[in-house]
Amino acid sequence: MAEKVASLGGEFGFINLIRSRITDPAGIRGIGDDCAVLPMNSKSDLVVTTDLLIEDVHFILDDITAAQLAYKSAAVNLSDIAAMGARPIGCFLSIALPKDITARWADQFIESFIAICDRFGATLLGGDTTSSKGPLAINVAVLGKVPCGRSKLRSSAREGDIICCTGTLGDSGAGLDVVLSRVSSAGSTKLDADAEWLVRRHYEPTPRIQEGLLLGELEGVHAMMDISDGIASDLNHILKASSTSSVQLGADIHVEQLPLSSKLRRWSAANGKDAKIIALTAGEDYELLLTLDPKDFDLARNLLAPLCSLTAIGEITASHKGIRYMDGDHELNQEISGFTHF
Amino acid sequence: MAEKVASLGGEFGFINLIRSRITDPAGIRGIGDDCAVLPMNSKSDLVVTTDLLIEDVHFILDDITAAQLAYKSAAVNLSDIAAMGARPIGCFLSIALPKDITARWADQFIESFIAICDRFGATLLGGDTTSSKGPLAINVAVLGKVPCGRSKLRSSAREGDIICCTGTLGDSGAGLDVVLSRVSSAGSTKLDADAEWLVRRHYEPTPRIQEGLLLGELEGVHAMMDISDGIASDLNHILKASSTSSVQLGADIHVEQLPLSSKLRRWSAANGKDAKIIALTAGEDYELLLTLDPKDFDLARNLLAPLCSLTAIGEITASHKGIRYMDGDHELNQEISGFTHF
Repeated sequence: MAEKVASLGGEFGFINLIRSRITDPAGIRGIGDDCAVLPMNSKSDLVVTTDLLIEDVHFILDDITAAQLAYKSAAVNLSDIAAMGARPIGCFLSIALPKDITARWADQFIESFIAICDRFGATLLGGDTTSSKGPLAINVAVLGKVPCGRSKLRSSAREGDIICCTGTLGDSGAGLDVVLSRVSSAGSTKLDADAEWLVRRHYEPTPRIQEGLLLGELEGVHAMMDISDGIASDLNHILKASSTSSVQLGADIHVEQLPLSSKLRRWSAANGKDAKIIALTAGEDYELLLTLDPKDFDLARNLLAPLCSLTAIGEITASHKGIRYMDGDHELNQEISGFTHF
Repeated sequence: MAEKVASLGGEFGFINLIRSRITDPAGIRGIGDDCAVLPMNSKSDLVVTTDLLIEDVHFILDDITAAQLAYKSAAVNLSDIAAMGARPIGCFLSIALPKDITARWADQFIESFIAICDRFGATLLGGDTTSSKGPLAINVAVLGKVPCGRSKLRSSAREGDIICCTGTLGDSGAGLDVVLSRVSSAGSTKLDADAEWLVRRHYEPTPRIQEGLLLGELEGVHAMMDISDGIASDLNHILKASSTSSVQLGADIHVEQLPLSSKLRRWSAANGKDAKIIALTAGEDYELLLTLDPKDFDLARNLLAPLCSLTAIGEITASHKGIRYMDGDHELNQEISGFTHF
């Protein structure tokens, strides 16, 4: 039997296969960050990101509205632009539509897509439309700009940095759990207000564009990325990218400091879930994860205060590799750390 | 019953729906050409294109090799860059892989994709990979650059222009016919050399990058686009984009002047097909279609001679609307003209 692509290690295996064959041209940062960074002009670099969403992998068409799907398709890309500290310029939408999609659905999709793009300055500039005999597929590419050499990368974390995140964590993961329950019960579950809110956080994440721009201006903000796969996975990208042959960086995360919404706490308690574990391991929060010089933490938090919270959740260290999860004074057991492979 | 998206008029209906809701920001040309054009710096404009290919809509996975699919995914986008007279800078690959794709297939795909991108200067700079429970889906986006204000648009055709195309037409359409026969006969058809060549023209179209750059430098080249849906469809895009409220442009196409390969002629004769009709109406040739000042035709043809042929196939006129297909002195019947709705 031929080796299956799953044995490459899934998504990251395929990306590593590509990376092993590519060398970035001089002056360009390609694969490895939330966006590629290219020289544009004397003031700005160009940043570019693209994300592909597939029905039944990234969304369940019967559960999500056309407007929500459009919003989310744009938002996950805008979040990558935010993570670079960049400003959106324009976007491109490719969509493969099954034949049974209605004109009303298409109209609502386009209206919502244009609304979120316009709201964040990413004018729809082109794309591609086609039919699909299978699932609905959506690819969005977004261009942005950032002052030359000022894009925030995953590779800039330093020993002693405070690890922070915007907003609250885990809401989207809990929302996905609610969606999957709703789908498996064929919609017969009546959702309470908390569950409804968590589902909205899953379907309508807030791209932290304005927050990213403010953080992008701070020299004390070192590494930044958006949280798409959960801290337990994403923080490892920062640690790996920021480590050198001489200094291996690790992190301490203080789970009692994780910013958890009251809705997530209540929903978790009512459903026998551990909100902290959801916050660490579930994906698609699309909050910003950053490391910054401790002296700039108050400044950064105050800058963001009118928009959203900024919470210190840990520190970058050179004293151990990988992520150590601390609950007060004791380290969480291995099972929790295992979620780094999420 | 809700109105189905097909009733919007398919691909073009959906695009028109989007267009009706969008206004390009100042200085940017968005939807409506082969690429969007954005200001980049004092020397160059940025051009961007994206194309989505879906299994069983754009290709049959069992018939095309991994290397051919990778090549074609890149080539159809590079062709759009060529059509603007632009130079590729970089590209982005999004791919949704079914679980039964082998590691060997993935490796061959990536090797071929990187090879064609590197050959034309479009370094692979990023993308997205995911699984798919349904068909394989590939989205490619390519960035390019063109001297400021010098991109070749669909809207620049003028009365009296000669209509030209590069290379030969119809090979790809015949190649698709061969592929579909081969698939329906479950591969039992033994292909002769002509058929093999036509299939290669379908799976491995040549992006006319160098040709586009040479033509891009000629002021006498007015409108340009690539031929993806056949002249009968694509020339109408030029006529529509170049007409104004005061001047409605039309075209005469001289079908006896269509550049037909000897392989297409032989294959058509052997299979009872009309090579000229295939050349007019079949898609995916990815040759360049351009209109130019008659005085520059010899110059353009000589410039391209080391690379490929440039053939005059008609003229832009203001004396009638739409396309008139002439075979010698007589006009082809309505049935042929009907292929403009292909």
